[in-house]
Amino acid sequence: MFPIRKKETAPPRTIGLITDFGLADPYVGQMRAVLARKAPGCLVVDITHDVAPFNVAQAAFFLAASYEHFPAEAVILAVVDPGVGTDRGIVALDIDGRLLLAPDNGLLALALKNAWAEHIRAFDLSVATDAPSRVSHTFHGRDVFSPLAAWLALGGNPGELGREIDPQALVSLPWSHPDIRPGLAQGHVLHIDRFGNCVLNLEAGSIGTPTGLRLTMPAGGELVYARTYGDMPEGAPGLLEGSQGFLELAVNQRSAAKRFGLSMGDAVELAWEA
Amino acid sequence: MFPIRKKETAPPRTIGLITDFGLADPYVGQMRAVLARKAPGCLVVDITHDVAPFNVAQAAFFLAASYEHFPAEAVILAVVDPGVGTDRGIVALDIDGRLLLAPDNGLLALALKNAWAEHIRAFDLSVATDAPSRVSHTFHGRDVFSPLAAWLALGGNPGELGREIDPQALVSLPWSHPDIRPGLAQGHVLHIDRFGNCVLNLEAGSIGTPTGLRLTMPAGGELVYARTYGDMPEGAPGLLEGSQGFLELAVNQRSAAKRFGLSMGDAVELAWEA
Amino acid sequence: MFPIRKKETAPPRTIGLITDFGLADPYVGQMRAVLARKAPGCLVVDITHDVAPFNVAQAAFFLAASYEHFPAEAVILAVVDPGVGTDRGIVALDIDGRLLLAPDNGLLALALKNAWAEHIRAFDLSVATDAPSRVSHTFHGRDVFSPLAAWLALGGNPGELGREIDPQALVSLPWSHPDIRPGLAQGHVLHIDRFGNCVLNLEAGSIGTPTGLRLTMPAGGELVYARTYGDMPEGAPGLLEGSQGFLELAVNQRSAAKRFGLSMGDAVELAWEA
Repeated sequence: MFPIRKKETAPPRTIGLITDFGLADPYVGQMRAVLARKAPGCLVVDITHDVAPFNVAQAAFFLAASYEHFPAEAVILAVVDPGVGTDRGIVALDIDGRLLLAPDNGLLALALKNAWAEHIRAFDLSVATDAPSRVSHTFHGRDVFSPLAAWLALGGNPGELGREIDPQALVSLPWSHPDIRPGLAQGHVLHIDRFGNCVLNLEAGSIGTPTGLRLTMPAGGELVYARTYGDMPEGAPGLLEGSQGFLELAVNQRSAAKRFGLSMGDAVELAWEA
Repeated sequence: MFPIRKKETAPPRTIGLITDFGLADPYVGQMRAVLARKAPGCLVVDITHDVAPFNVAQAAFFLAASYEHFPAEAVILAVVDPGVGTDRGIVALDIDGRLLLAPDNGLLALALKNAWAEHIRAFDLSVATDAPSRVSHTFHGRDVFSPLAAWLALGGNPGELGREIDPQALVSLPWSHPDIRPGLAQGHVLHIDRFGNCVLNLEAGSIGTPTGLRLTMPAGGELVYARTYGDMPEGAPGLLEGSQGFLELAVNQRSAAKRFGLSMGDAVELAWEA
Repeated sequence: MFPIRKKETAPPRTIGLITDFGLADPYVGQMRAVLARKAPGCLVVDITHDVAPFNVAQAAFFLAASYEHFPAEAVILAVVDPGVGTDRGIVALDIDGRLLLAPDNGLLALALKNAWAEHIRAFDLSVATDAPSRVSHTFHGRDVFSPLAAWLALGGNPGELGREIDPQALVSLPWSHPDIRPGLAQGHVLHIDRFGNCVLNLEAGSIGTPTGLRLTMPAGGELVYARTYGDMPEGAPGLLEGSQGFLELAVNQRSAAKRFGLSMGDAVELAWEA
């Protein structure tokens, strides 16, 4: 399926995983088994497998918020793939030496947009689907993406397998481009975490340090702008830079989702003194 | 407890895990800790720990669907053990070099039935319970099965510990033998996955490529017979060979469980033109 | 941030993890990524990440019940940290060579109380928060505790980083000291497991082998005192020594929590013939 690797490869790379397969089914376990078989010696690090089924935006946020914490040269595989079985492509994004591998459906859009990297390169690896298509029973996460991630983790060069493409040619979706104007930002909720914090598709810093900040949609209300939880008065709602690289609606030790009646995907509007 | 291993053992084997302990309690973590202590250098791969409590049929499916994806010589430990504390046995099944270790309660039945292996051998390792029974506080997954799996993963030979037995003598249960006749198959639901697909106790290929296929129990309805999701019309229900080695009732991007009102364990009947 | 390690360090230590971050968010994945980056070669073993949010008592039980199963010299990091952002300390407890690392909020109290170790030492490592406080976006589990755990796992000496303190000076909370008198014990429920067993803050053996045992709060009822599940009559409620080092209210193959209407944190009173 893939070109033979040279014997003098680099040391095994760490492999990160994001999927929407959950942990209750055996699907993730089978991906891990394939990685153990095809990439012996490579550490596998689960980011999360609880992406809401088919929620590409949430997975894109998880990927953008997490890849920089991995060792240099890690391979990070993200599989949320509503288009499996169609002719959607497979792409790898090289950001300063880390390789992000995913279906080309927008999953890489936030990592790409968020990257301040010197060197970004993209590769079309759709050819990887060729061999397994001859196999009648195909679970792409296990039978296409995992062998490909293993091959890359053992030192495979994406340029040997597929052609380099313009990173700007990757599929992007509406939520990768929020509308930010002086005094007004429209975006939506990418993710609601276990503590009820609502992560927006607005990068930390993207609206400066606003004064007179208000949530104007869905419900009105003043917001404290805060860099960390420690800066937030208890019980008061705020817009938090947080630790994930994106702005979060948060209420100290309470659920912002409940406070504002927000669900994943909901539209949100912020206003401030321009 | 176990015979001393020779110093010249094989390289450490991968250890796979299936249990019904869930991940919210510390039980699986304690098993992993024991494996880290007793089998240093062995990679531990979680298949899933979310088997429904005491559901041996579901675990048997997870095991049968997963073991072949592991590296050669892996040891796969499955602990779903409603009979813990009784005199149920412990068995290891060697299928072409991979070792499947479990209580003898039917958990190995689908892997055994599904195997097209050249070499299958079975071993009665019930003796492994002897030593820990002297310890007052015993959690068999942690105190009996994990040390045994560690010993095997470091190269222990099951034949040194227990006697070889006839694989056909392993406990099997009604769901390991569905009723398949020309034009009619009666089985039941082994598992319902996160996407609502209903896995039946009918192996892929076991009813050929039927025409005029209908679900006749619990509710009537025509079914498309499909090899992969890509072959299924959107929204139409089908019987899918899928990726797990067993036939699945599926509806493309919808829940077949909801569509047909099915729960795990429910009886199902299929009819087609004989 | 931390003193330079000597080159001649010990072999990499195993790192255990307990948090209340859950597995649905990317937080635990980011901690694992940092550990992969900063402690290459160290095995990471998840105990559980499903501690109820901010429930220090439950986490203290998980830690006390689990640390002894780890390899000698393991580093076990527990992060349940309602006081993040305040001036709560960070402490490491050395119990016979294993290092337990946590915020100083009571999380170490049950392990400390439960330890029959020859050598227990405690270290105040609050200094570890200094460097990251200069970073505006701080998630302590990822940015403070994980680098610290990595440093210790690579052989770092806690005494080099912080001053040794009296283990008795660690924060302890009401549930670390149950009230046990002749014929009467008052405690509460630390944890309810997947099977409905209710773990009490009473160590196994702490009330001897009582006769005429009754649950007197919340609801009355006779209890069998049992060492293992095998000793419990089916369907009859009992007080079980179990496998976790603490007494558990249990009903063989049923839920004791349902039977007695118990929730985590509930007060419980036991009486017996003194």
